[in-house]
Amino acid sequence: MKVDLRLYALVDPAVAGGRTLPALAKLIAGAATLVQLRDKHGSTRAMIEEARALKAVLAPAGVPLLINDRVDVALASGADGVHIGQTDMSPQDARRLLGPDAIIGLSLKTLAHAQAAPLDLLDYVAVGGVYGTTSKEDAAAPIGVAGFKAVAGAVRARAPGYPVCAIAGINAGNAAAVIEAGADGVSVISALSLSPDPAAAARELRAVVDDALAKRGRA
Amino acid sequence: MKVDLRLYALVDPAVAGGRTLPALAKLIAGAATLVQLRDKHGSTRAMIEEARALKAVLAPAGVPLLINDRVDVALASGADGVHIGQTDMSPQDARRLLGPDAIIGLSLKTLAHAQAAPLDLLDYVAVGGVYGTTSKEDAAAPIGVAGFKAVAGAVRARAPGYPVCAIAGINAGNAAAVIEAGADGVSVISALSLSPDPAAAARELRAVVDDALAKRGRA
Repeated sequence: MKVDLRLYALVDPAVAGGRTLPALAKLIAGAATLVQLRDKHGSTRAMIEEARALKAVLAPAGVPLLINDRVDVALASGADGVHIGQTDMSPQDARRLLGPDAIIGLSLKTLAHAQAAPLDLLDYVAVGGVYGTTSKEDAAAPIGVAGFKAVAGAVRARAPGYPVCAIAGINAGNAAAVIEAGADGVSVISALSLSPDPAAAARELRAVVDDALAKRGRA
Repeated sequence: MKVDLRLYALVDPAVAGGRTLPALAKLIAGAATLVQLRDKHGSTRAMIEEARALKAVLAPAGVPLLINDRVDVALASGADGVHIGQTDMSPQDARRLLGPDAIIGLSLKTLAHAQAAPLDLLDYVAVGGVYGTTSKEDAAAPIGVAGFKAVAGAVRARAPGYPVCAIAGINAGNAAAVIEAGADGVSVISALSLSPDPAAAARELRAVVDDALAKRGRA
């Protein structure tokens, strides 16, 4: 698999618990398998600077960095790819601009999204919001574990084994349920960024995911 | 000159006077020499769609389309270039991503900006805000015609004849003053977009600019 979704950490200056993003990345880099920079409020120049600072921390740790929405920021900073939503650049345009080696992920929430997604142009999909969240301003009603299972199932009916992570409101207490429901990993923000000890929180959540994946493998 | 700055029209869905951007572009394309799409609120996908619709109107008229800030939108839509501000992507990154043929302009307000601008990587600079404006949310105190003259003078002390346009609060009543002060053209938004007759307003403003340029040429 091109991308390891087990512990996919979003970092966002608006949800950073008073830490700088590189400091936060340093704390979680030992457990996170993938990091995404999201910044819906900063200037383009600030976001490029954030991306470069994150890349400097994450590249030596072997953790890929994706950029939320902004292909320009990914190209300028040398990030490993982008995560796009349904109102961001189309996957077709993003793949054309970023090339075959970039990692590109897409957010899905509905069965219609799952049917329409150009899976061959993408490396993974993120399905959610599974649980309620406080870290996204425009979050709508969550789809729950049952909704996750239905959307992920629709993706894998088209492409067996396709990489899918679950997103929104996930923490060490509810992560096992989405792994049992078929997720390859969890995408989180507040559970790490707003923890008093992000390094410990990342290790704990990664252990929960790894255990649940192992249990599923044995089932 | 690679770029004709005489009547440089910004179009912005937030300042469109109830018209669609392609409809507005169609009205002004006969007089405008350059058009810039600015959209600080829409999604990336919406902005790419706006850019493609504008390009379809402007390309047959031979009027280049630039994108404010967003190099990703310019690349995806096939626009002719970008206009960047001091907190957008750096001119160095923008030129690297867009290539040698793209048109790239930069906003300058101060003598320090004029000294720092990498003029050889840019095609023009826009100096202002000259007059007060209502169409930019974060507009600070205007620099006036004297301020314009000082900043444009600092640019041309480094590069004689360098393309410079004036921006902010310009209309048919005050455009001649900035041309007399050395501008190659005027960058406007409200004067056209919020006019009851944008086509007539564009023709009138273009005539004012052309007359003032001719007068300056004879002086």
